[in-house]
Amino acid sequence: MNTTEWYAGYINKAVSEIKYPAQPAGLYEPIAYTLASGGKRLRPMLVLAACEACGGDAVNALHQALGIEMYHNFTLLHDDVMDRADVRRGRPTVHVRWNDSTAILSGDAMLTMAGQLMMEVSYERILRPVMELFNTTAMEIYEGQQYDMDFEKRADVTIEEYLEMIRLKTSVLLGASCKLGALVAGAPSSTADRLYEYGVMLGLAFQLQDDYLDTFGDPAVFGKAIGGDILNDKKTYLLISALQCGDDVARSEIESMFGTRSEEKIRRVRELYVQYGIDRMCRDAIDRYSDLAEKAVAETEIPEESKKFFIDLARKSSSRHS
Amino acid sequence: MNTTEWYAGYINKAVSEIKYPAQPAGLYEPIAYTLASGGKRLRPMLVLAACEACGGDAVNALHQALGIEMYHNFTLLHDDVMDRADVRRGRPTVHVRWNDSTAILSGDAMLTMAGQLMMEVSYERILRPVMELFNTTAMEIYEGQQYDMDFEKRADVTIEEYLEMIRLKTSVLLGASCKLGALVAGAPSSTADRLYEYGVMLGLAFQLQDDYLDTFGDPAVFGKAIGGDILNDKKTYLLISALQCGDDVARSEIESMFGTRSEEKIRRVRELYVQYGIDRMCRDAIDRYSDLAEKAVAETEIPEESKKFFIDLARKSSSRHS
Repeated sequence: MNTTEWYAGYINKAVSEIKYPAQPAGLYEPIAYTLASGGKRLRPMLVLAACEACGGDAVNALHQALGIEMYHNFTLLHDDVMDRADVRRGRPTVHVRWNDSTAILSGDAMLTMAGQLMMEVSYERILRPVMELFNTTAMEIYEGQQYDMDFEKRADVTIEEYLEMIRLKTSVLLGASCKLGALVAGAPSSTADRLYEYGVMLGLAFQLQDDYLDTFGDPAVFGKAIGGDILNDKKTYLLISALQCGDDVARSEIESMFGTRSEEKIRRVRELYVQYGIDRMCRDAIDRYSDLAEKAVAETEIPEESKKFFIDLARKSSSRHS
Repeated sequence: MNTTEWYAGYINKAVSEIKYPAQPAGLYEPIAYTLASGGKRLRPMLVLAACEACGGDAVNALHQALGIEMYHNFTLLHDDVMDRADVRRGRPTVHVRWNDSTAILSGDAMLTMAGQLMMEVSYERILRPVMELFNTTAMEIYEGQQYDMDFEKRADVTIEEYLEMIRLKTSVLLGASCKLGALVAGAPSSTADRLYEYGVMLGLAFQLQDDYLDTFGDPAVFGKAIGGDILNDKKTYLLISALQCGDDVARSEIESMFGTRSEEKIRRVRELYVQYGIDRMCRDAIDRYSDLAEKAVAETEIPEESKKFFIDLARKSSSRHS
């Protein structure tokens, strides 16, 4: 096993070496621009780490790792058009720097290129399982994005619905990343399935941590302003829990602030979350999913050193270790 | 071999039997809506006909035929967003009936579903060639769409550039359709390549015929108002030829009308096209590509009855038989 830093460096180098046709520049430049914007490279890292954990050679899973990263960046590109997001990782989004058509078309090309990268398997016998996992996961992610958009228009979203939405929209891609690495390494299906489970639980923990930090994080560490979700009445784990579990007075007060934007709103909603123990509920949920991620890894037969790698990663999301 | 009517009916039935998940309806309803809108089903017909021509059973190529139709409709869906087109086949486009986000996301899902359909091969040994052909063709189509958008902003597009653009944007998909059918039937690569060539030439002939009929067609037969391309200064084979081959006076007069919209403009540009023989040039080009399509088919070793099917189809585009 290597370190997270080594994997990130290895992936960044491979990303920078992807060759694009010179023409038409309007199609390929936005793709290179998007992939060069960095990010944590978490998903391709999981592909490579899972491959090594299962006794494979990381280089054999590199194309699948790049395919997952290409796919992930495609979803960000199209999501940014749908959400009218202007900035991503500190830079103008593609539809701002170019235009909507460019973002749509370059994104389409990225989806096809992701499929092409996926097909570059070291062993032909895994071509079908790799492609089927990739396609099934992609469909789940579109479903998650659709539910996310549907929920914006609904006032009665439950915690269970929210968790299922984030499972589809963000977690299954982490699960699929782990499973891809296991497939490339020729791991038994029980191991591949447990690593998939690990990835999904890790994804849920990370997403809930994102929700938590947007309201309760340290701006210096979190990297962006605190309270954006509250300002935008975004249906996060915190808000849905407060509306579902807080008492009627608290619910009325929060609902009365919908549509308004002020520092006072952020302060007051955060105060209500604390008063009704919503922050604690969220941290407990993060710990629960982090524990489930650890449990899934513990049940595999990968080396102890590999288990430690995955467990350390899961603990980064846990409130007990953050 | 069957008739074009039989193929169209067979495909329409299969399209209507595609099963979509019930939820999220916002994702799947626009897909069913798009595919139900009909169209000539030319591409899936080519898949099935090429398969039968090469001795295969049409049913074995049905998933690939549906995959091609799904892919084609995905490109229309996203193109309509990029072109801000409000109507398609007499019905509101998806981004009008729903919204841009729905059109983008449902289109993405269609691209992935097209890949899933493609993978449903009757013989596992053709999985890779089928998928590689599908992905390569998809990338060419994005490049063609990008060139099409680039050309809108350029005044110096040449006929050669225009032909390469329509080859990429529309013709390679017809070529790939033919080749897919041949691959499913296990045809020798020489036959598959000749049928691919046929499809590309057929596509060029059809696209130039589209250009021609938009200006010189019979509105009752063409199915839409005549002159839309002239009104919109669309860079078609006719306009580019006139700017490139007409004399300076004609070029100046046409350019002086750019940006204007009137029946008189349509009448006058059409008159100039005829005066400078541009209409004849376009019909000659159509005949040339139609002949090349026939020639490609003639060089294969498929049964005479099959050759006749493909040649009859090519002649539908030819001015000598329209």
